[in-house]
Formats: sequence, structure tokens, C-alpha cells
Amino acid sequence: MEKEETLIFGIRSVQEAIESEKSLNRVFIQRGLTGSSAFSLIKTLNKKSIEISYVPVEKLNRFTIKNHQGVVATIAPIKFLNIDGLSEIVERKKDSALILILDQLSDVRNFGAIVRTAECSGVDCIVIQSSGSAPVNGDTIKTSSGAVFNVPICKVSHIKDAIYLLKQFDIKIFGATEKADKNIYQTSFKTSQAIVMGSESKGLSSSVVTLCDSLIKIPLLGKIESLNVSVACGAILYEIVRQKNY
Amino acid sequence: MEKEETLIFGIRSVQEAIESEKSLNRVFIQRGLTGSSAFSLIKTLNKKSIEISYVPVEKLNRFTIKNHQGVVATIAPIKFLNIDGLSEIVERKKDSALILILDQLSDVRNFGAIVRTAECSGVDCIVIQSSGSAPVNGDTIKTSSGAVFNVPICKVSHIKDAIYLLKQFDIKIFGATEKADKNIYQTSFKTSQAIVMGSESKGLSSSVVTLCDSLIKIPLLGKIESLNVSVACGAILYEIVRQKNY
Repeated sequence: MEKEETLIFGIRSVQEAIESEKSLNRVFIQRGLTGSSAFSLIKTLNKKSIEISYVPVEKLNRFTIKNHQGVVATIAPIKFLNIDGLSEIVERKKDSALILILDQLSDVRNFGAIVRTAECSGVDCIVIQSSGSAPVNGDTIKTSSGAVFNVPICKVSHIKDAIYLLKQFDIKIFGATEKADKNIYQTSFKTSQAIVMGSESKGLSSSVVTLCDSLIKIPLLGKIESLNVSVACGAILYEIVRQKNY
Repeated sequence: MEKEETLIFGIRSVQEAIESEKSLNRVFIQRGLTGSSAFSLIKTLNKKSIEISYVPVEKLNRFTIKNHQGVVATIAPIKFLNIDGLSEIVERKKDSALILILDQLSDVRNFGAIVRTAECSGVDCIVIQSSGSAPVNGDTIKTSSGAVFNVPICKVSHIKDAIYLLKQFDIKIFGATEKADKNIYQTSFKTSQAIVMGSESKGLSSSVVTLCDSLIKIPLLGKIESLNVSVACGAILYEIVRQKNY
């Protein structure tokens, strides 16, 4: 368990944490666990798209010596927004919204650096997906320099849900990919917009690419085919800062 | 030891590695080691500003079971340039040199990401200091995406030596610090230049600040007082790319 995360255990405790809308980072369930309350919990977790790791009982025993009933979870130190929260932010910001969408970015240090950059460059909300994303834990707090407490983070079941919502508000969706024709310096960022960054290993998923209004790239002058994702995100967000302010 | 590093041991082997100009990452010497050849080696290492870690013999025994004579060193997978190499590059590039100077940046992942960004943004040479800098090892290769093999890296005893040399070639020295008055969008980068980035914890050292021709900052729109150093470096290098090409 990471520092800054809170550990909870027991079927009822985890169920209650979900009901009171706590931000669960990870849920560990004992392999082969049976019983109606366990099944009910798994059903709720699946419904909320919260990722479950099925582990041997020994792993759970290392988390706590108390009676965990085969279920242990960690709670994030922040409260995530849901899609209604994103909707409120976009409504409030009207024509100047800047939303950053992270498509299954999984490395905690990259995530922390991006949250920090987002705070520094005026991003209104960061959107992440429930499954496949880096957790918000002690490492994220540290690498974000505390920015996780300043920038709203919205967790959605699927990135696409957020994109559909933003499109309703006429927010232009820019997908960052090396396969784009236009680069960021040939792009006008002066309107209300969302930037979608892909994962470290796979980039943007193809289903997300088709939903973007425009694809953008960063010019690469050498032989290496991509930048580190947090550096790329910084270059894009700061080009937006430049176009909006200078 | 990191993958991709080569281990050498024995007083004579390490002395020979230095004489044949191999790039030593780290040198471990047994605490309390005596003898004239050991003293002679330590003298050479100090002269070359190669950092020595004095460790208990048990640590050396973990590196190798062979007869290490109280001395173990790791060799970097690349060959560093010396200051003459930097001089040649600057002479060749004349009015369009772009040099990146890292003032005791110590985190391997930041270093790797910066080397990668430098390769992508057309940096001609990266300058680091012999002591206090992140090593070039397997992690650097990985986080740089292999860029350490494409961008020349020059190692100098003191950052100041490189700055004095660059000034002789009329290269403008820009120091990146939040204390600057002008931001990067109010700065003209179209000439030949060097950018100096500070360490993660302390920023630019004050003795380096006084040598800079101009100090520059990145606008920060939130409450956090600085960006991650590799993101900041990316924002600056890409503003130079923009000004030179778009």
C-alpha cells in the first residue's frame, strides 16, 4: 500500500465506502471467494467499473492481520468528480474551457507530472477512466507536487462518455498522436477545447481517435518517434497558454 | 548495478579504464583502503572529478566474488565528450547551435526524459557535470527511449567551464528559473544559444545564475510554484523549435 492511501477491509466496509462515494483506488478480493454478500459486492464493483484484483489469501493477510473476510481495498486521498461534475465545470467555463483527457495513462510518475503541468497551465478538469489508469496515491501526490488537491479529476467508466458529453457543449476534441498531419504550431487553440493524451505504450486507442475533431502532433526533429507523454502533454498545454495569452 | 552498465574491479583495471577514457559512472572504494596504488587511483579520480563512494567491504563483495582489491566501478554504455568535443560541435554549428546544460540534475528518469526531448527538438549537445549528475545507465537508456545513443553528451568538471567556453563563441546563455522577470514567450530564441536547467531540488545554483546572459521562466497560472524539470525543459526547447521553424 502506498503512503497517503487509506486501507479498508471487510465486505461490508468496502460496500459502505462505495455507497458513500469514497474514491476506491484498488480492490483486492481473495481468489475463489464465495457467499451472497461477496457476490453482491463484486456486482456493485463491476457496475461502477472499479477494477478488481483477485489474489491469494496470503496477499490479503499481508495487508492486515485483522478479519478481512477476503476483501481489502485502498481509498484515494482525493474525491473524484463523476460525469455530472465535469458537466458543471464545462457549463461554468462556457467558451474558455480547457479539459485534459488521459486515455489509460498508467504510469504514476507520468500521471503526477501531468497533473502538476495541468495545474500550472490552467486546465479546468482532468478526465481519467476508472479502469487502466494510474491511481491517485502518495506517489501521485509527491510527483504532482500536491497539484492533485488543486485540479478537479473526473473519473468516468469510459473515456468516450466524457467525449460525448464535451461534444454536446461544442468543445473541440484534439487527439494527440504522432500520426496526425498537422502539428500544434499549425493549429489554432483559441476556442474552448479538450486535449486527449494516449497511454505510454499504445498511444490513443483507435476508438477514441475516431471521436476526435482534430488530430495534432508535436514536430519531432530527430530519429526518436515520440516524446515522453508528460513532456508531450506539457508542450501542447503550453502552446495553448502561449496562444491564449501572448 | 544497473543493466547495460559494465562492471570492472581491481585497482589496475579501474586505472586502465580511466586512462583509456572509458566513461566511469560510479566508483566504489573500500573504506580505509591503504597502499600506494590505491592512493594513486584516488588521486587520479579526484583530478578527473569522478565521484567516489566509500563503502564497507561487504558491499563490494556483493558486486563480485572475485578479487576486487577494494575497488569496483561501473562503466556507462556511452562515451562522453570532453570540453574539446563541445568546442568542435559549437564551431561546426556556428550561428545555429542549441546546447542544453544540466546543472546537477540528479533523477535518472528526468534525465532520460530530457535526453529524449533534446533529441526530438534538435539539441546539438547536452552538457552535464561530472559530480552530482544522474548517471547514464540502463534506466537512462530506457527512459530516453534510446536517445542517449543519438545526442552527444559532454561531461565537464564544472558547469561553469562549459559556460565560459560557450561565451567565447558568442552563444547566449539562458538560465531557466522561476525568479526570472521575462517568460519564454517574451524572449527571442532565434540566435545561437544554450539553455541551463537547474536540479530538481535546488534549481539553478547561484554561481551559475550570475554567468547567464538572460534568465527566463515559464508562466505558471496556478498555485504550484514550478513544473517538473523535464516538462519545463520540454516547454522551453519546444518554444525554441516553434520560433525557429513556425
